[in-house]
Amino acid sequence: MLTESGCLQRQANLWNCLPTEIHWVLIADPRHVQYFSGFRCDPVSFSADQTSALLLFRDGTSTLLADNFARRTAASDVWVTREEIEPWYTHKRSVNNRHHATRKALQRHTERLDLSAGLMEAESVSLDLYQTILGDAQSSFGPSLSVNSLIRQLRRQKLEDEQQLLQRCMDAGAAGHQAAFAAIQPGVTELDVYLAVQQAAQDKAGLACVVYGDFRATNGKMFKAGGLPTQYVLQEGDLFIVDYSVVIAGYRSDYTNTIAVGTPTAEQEAQAAACIDALAAAEACLKPGGSSVAVFDAVDRTLKDRGFEGLVHHAGHGLGMEHPEPPILVSESTDELLVNDVVTVEPGLYVEGRGGMRFEHNYRITEAGYERMSHHHLGLMQP
Amino acid sequence: MLTESGCLQRQANLWNCLPTEIHWVLIADPRHVQYFSGFRCDPVSFSADQTSALLLFRDGTSTLLADNFARRTAASDVWVTREEIEPWYTHKRSVNNRHHATRKALQRHTERLDLSAGLMEAESVSLDLYQTILGDAQSSFGPSLSVNSLIRQLRRQKLEDEQQLLQRCMDAGAAGHQAAFAAIQPGVTELDVYLAVQQAAQDKAGLACVVYGDFRATNGKMFKAGGLPTQYVLQEGDLFIVDYSVVIAGYRSDYTNTIAVGTPTAEQEAQAAACIDALAAAEACLKPGGSSVAVFDAVDRTLKDRGFEGLVHHAGHGLGMEHPEPPILVSESTDELLVNDVVTVEPGLYVEGRGGMRFEHNYRITEAGYERMSHHHLGLMQP
Repeated sequence: MLTESGCLQRQANLWNCLPTEIHWVLIADPRHVQYFSGFRCDPVSFSADQTSALLLFRDGTSTLLADNFARRTAASDVWVTREEIEPWYTHKRSVNNRHHATRKALQRHTERLDLSAGLMEAESVSLDLYQTILGDAQSSFGPSLSVNSLIRQLRRQKLEDEQQLLQRCMDAGAAGHQAAFAAIQPGVTELDVYLAVQQAAQDKAGLACVVYGDFRATNGKMFKAGGLPTQYVLQEGDLFIVDYSVVIAGYRSDYTNTIAVGTPTAEQEAQAAACIDALAAAEACLKPGGSSVAVFDAVDRTLKDRGFEGLVHHAGHGLGMEHPEPPILVSESTDELLVNDVVTVEPGLYVEGRGGMRFEHNYRITEAGYERMSHHHLGLMQP
Repeated sequence: MLTESGCLQRQANLWNCLPTEIHWVLIADPRHVQYFSGFRCDPVSFSADQTSALLLFRDGTSTLLADNFARRTAASDVWVTREEIEPWYTHKRSVNNRHHATRKALQRHTERLDLSAGLMEAESVSLDLYQTILGDAQSSFGPSLSVNSLIRQLRRQKLEDEQQLLQRCMDAGAAGHQAAFAAIQPGVTELDVYLAVQQAAQDKAGLACVVYGDFRATNGKMFKAGGLPTQYVLQEGDLFIVDYSVVIAGYRSDYTNTIAVGTPTAEQEAQAAACIDALAAAEACLKPGGSSVAVFDAVDRTLKDRGFEGLVHHAGHGLGMEHPEPPILVSESTDELLVNDVVTVEPGLYVEGRGGMRFEHNYRITEAGYERMSHHHLGLMQP
């Protein structure tokens, strides 16, 4: 989980990028409230949709603004100097608009906020919170700077606590991939496979968490399929793409294996080998300063060298709090790889008459090149 | 799932409540975007945290504003006149701030928006979207009216499509409650029980969805416990509170049973009987025009009549898109029951030396009184 030292370091990194005349920032993107404070409503809770806010000050202090029922569902420890929690729900009285609880919490702090020395995350701060701070003042304030975009840049290079949290997601993911081998057989539905993978991943994670991704069968006729599982019943000869994320406290893993329903054909094995070799070719390009285009080209070229049509989607992307996030590993990318980028690489081939498949690993970019963070078996059959 | 006719009726209900000079409304609360259009990012997807917006016009038309990757994860059918979908992610190029995709979609519509004839959901519309509409204009606009609060009032009385969606959640919930009887035994963890319930509920629902709630053991020493499951290992003599919600396309069921680990004592059976009788007493108060306080009092009085301390939390609350939502069934409530309120009633007793327990059913308020929507077995032992 995110640590106090990690949250403080991320705050310091933000302040280093902001003009010195800025003394406070109001954050309201739930991802960024968490990034700096650890606080996030658990998506597996009654407060999943609830908003909160975070005031950061240049002196290193911070104030969380939330309602008491949102606070109760924190997915992990909270690291702030002060919590301003509005008792929205009391088990005694009727309730008012829950959004107004955050506003009330903020109202108790507006006197401290010099309009000319502040910034807001305009993309996520509500008009209601903005007007609460603005009060009777007629004009807006601060430099025109997207603090939300700035934080998105900072998010690329993961600190140690974020790396560990991502590793925990990946380790849970591996358990689900192992379970998929046993679950995938003729006669079961895509949903059955999902439920088995979901159960194994959460069991390994040791908690209830969101497991989402592509859980779809492909075959010669339906060679392109993606998204959540359906009630389709697996048939001998199908291929099953298990491409999924385990989300723990807002961070997510994302890696794939493709499993044959029954015994794969020699053609299917050749298709899988091309993808897995493309992954190896991509690995040679993973290093600080490396280009995202080079990764894409390495995958694409390997697939074409084996006589396939090449890559019809991205070669991969960054991992963290969102899907996808930079660096984007595509043919026209302008993203250069950075130390502590965490990325995924996912060669795939979707061939009419044979079926679709995809294989994927997750990596951290290191000074020396890369560290592979996922350790599941890649292949159509259990080893 | 929400239907086209339901969405149009909800829009009409909103326009009936707004001043005639208002011709457009910008909605950005994800719950309310869904309420009027059916669109919501599936929480079991890569777009769970993503925002979108909806423009409603008095002439009955509507425009969904979203990025292409959010649109792909719609949890159900979308019913709008027009979709303005920004191609944020292309599998070809690097990405910009995803929030700006919704802004770009909105920018293509600002010419149609007469500031003096519009309203925004100030509690959820971002400062960024607000400034996009405001442009160079200096002043704000429209009457000072919380459209978000107004929609929250309208949400109380569920239309037929909402009732059916809630019933689907409840039917899935029943399968999980049945599975709990088999899963709960000495030596398993709370998490094991959750995983079994989650699997059965999703299997019945026929899709991947969020299952959350209280999955905790209680006993004479730990007689108060709530929240998500832990790694606690169940012991003979414990009681297990299974109080959970199944969330399908944003709507949620919420009902409880308590199961004994092993054979319950006569004292525990008496405690359970008091709760279940309190539920029956509450049912007599469920009717249009009935007071929430009367429901609370009926539960509280029954528990006290049986020699217990009375109710230490709410007697229940409304069900729909949020937890909890009005009517709030508490001692100082001002909420009167309305036809097509969907409510839950949940007597509980937490007794040192014996353990905690809670029993709960879900109901729709009808012209004649109520219809019970949940049909699980209430009791410490499998019947």
